[in-house]
This record gives sequence, C-alpha cells and structure tokens, in this order.
Amino acid sequence: MHIVTVLYGHPTDPAAFDKHYREVHAPMVDPIPGLKSFSYRHCASLDANPAPYYLIAELAFDSLEDLQAGMGSEAGQTAAGDVPNFASGGATMFVAHD
Amino acid sequence: MHIVTVLYGHPTDPAAFDKHYREVHAPMVDPIPGLKSFSYRHCASLDANPAPYYLIAELAFDSLEDLQAGMGSEAGQTAAGDVPNFASGGATMFVAHD
Repeated sequence: MHIVTVLYGHPTDPAAFDKHYREVHAPMVDPIPGLKSFSYRHCASLDANPAPYYLIAELAFDSLEDLQAGMGSEAGQTAAGDVPNFASGGATMFVAHD
Repeated sequence: MHIVTVLYGHPTDPAAFDKHYREVHAPMVDPIPGLKSFSYRHCASLDANPAPYYLIAELAFDSLEDLQAGMGSEAGQTAAGDVPNFASGGATMFVAHD
C-alpha cells in the first residue's frame, strides 16, 4: 500500500475544525479516484505533555501510480485545496509505503 | 481502535537503522500483549522537499486499556527501551483513536 499521511497541528478552534473536517472535508476525500481506504483519528499523548498533532489522516492507494493519479485528479485537488480553509494549526503531509 | 503512532526522524545511518529495526526492534514489538496489528512504512515526500520523517510505525490495540497494559508490560517496556539504541533522528510518539 502507498499511503498519504496528513498530520494536523492543534487548531485554534477544535470544535470548528472537527465540524468542517467531518461535514465538508471528509466528503471531499471519499470520491478521490483509486482511494482504497480513508481513516482519521484524533491524537492524544502518552504522558502529561500535549500530543504533537491534533488529528492524523491516512489515505491508502494500491500503488504510487494510483496515489499520484488520485491526488492529481480534480477530486484530489479539491480536497487538497480545502486544507487551508480549516487547518489553522498547519498540516504536514507525506507518503509512506510498505 | 487505539493506535500508538511512532514517527522516526531521519537517522544518521539509514542502513543501520533499517537493519536494527527489522532484525532487533520489530521482533521486540510483535510479542507485546494485546497487540492487534503492527505495521511500519518508510516515508517519502510529495514534492521536492525531504519527508519530515523517515519511518512511521503503528501499533493497534482494541481499547485504551489494552494499549496501556500492552505498553506497560515487560515486552512493551523492552521495545520502548530499545528506541534510543537506533533512533538517531529522534522519535515522536502519540496515541490516536477513531
């Protein structure tokens, strides 16, 4: 699997972030061509320090070619273009593969 | 699922990191009690910049209680204690849940 991982920093308004992510952003991700799975999880710390990120999202594709085609598609570009609309704590994105 | 995510920074010697991770560290993770899945992936960038991390590892448990018991077990402590032996680029760890 080739997986796009997005690490979102802590937003200024977590409730607004969650609402936008759930109601606006996630529905933009679902139709990306070639997407095999999409999941996101809220982060918590293992100790007294705050978690380094607020939310982690993972978009899985069968191959790097599928990943590149999906992220480059109109749906992929729409979803990527939405990130600045809600990611007030920044977003770190990278690809990882088995 | 409750998932421990570990983000490893770029090591000074990637080949030595990979060898230790595969031959020493991963076999320490496998026997952690309650572990439902364990996977790790090398990171790559989506653009010309280097990926922010070298390797991402995910350890999944059914519940937070299982996660805490597993990470606190002798096997969990052995695996955690091994991290400084090879993570020359540092390691960032957090928990995330659905």
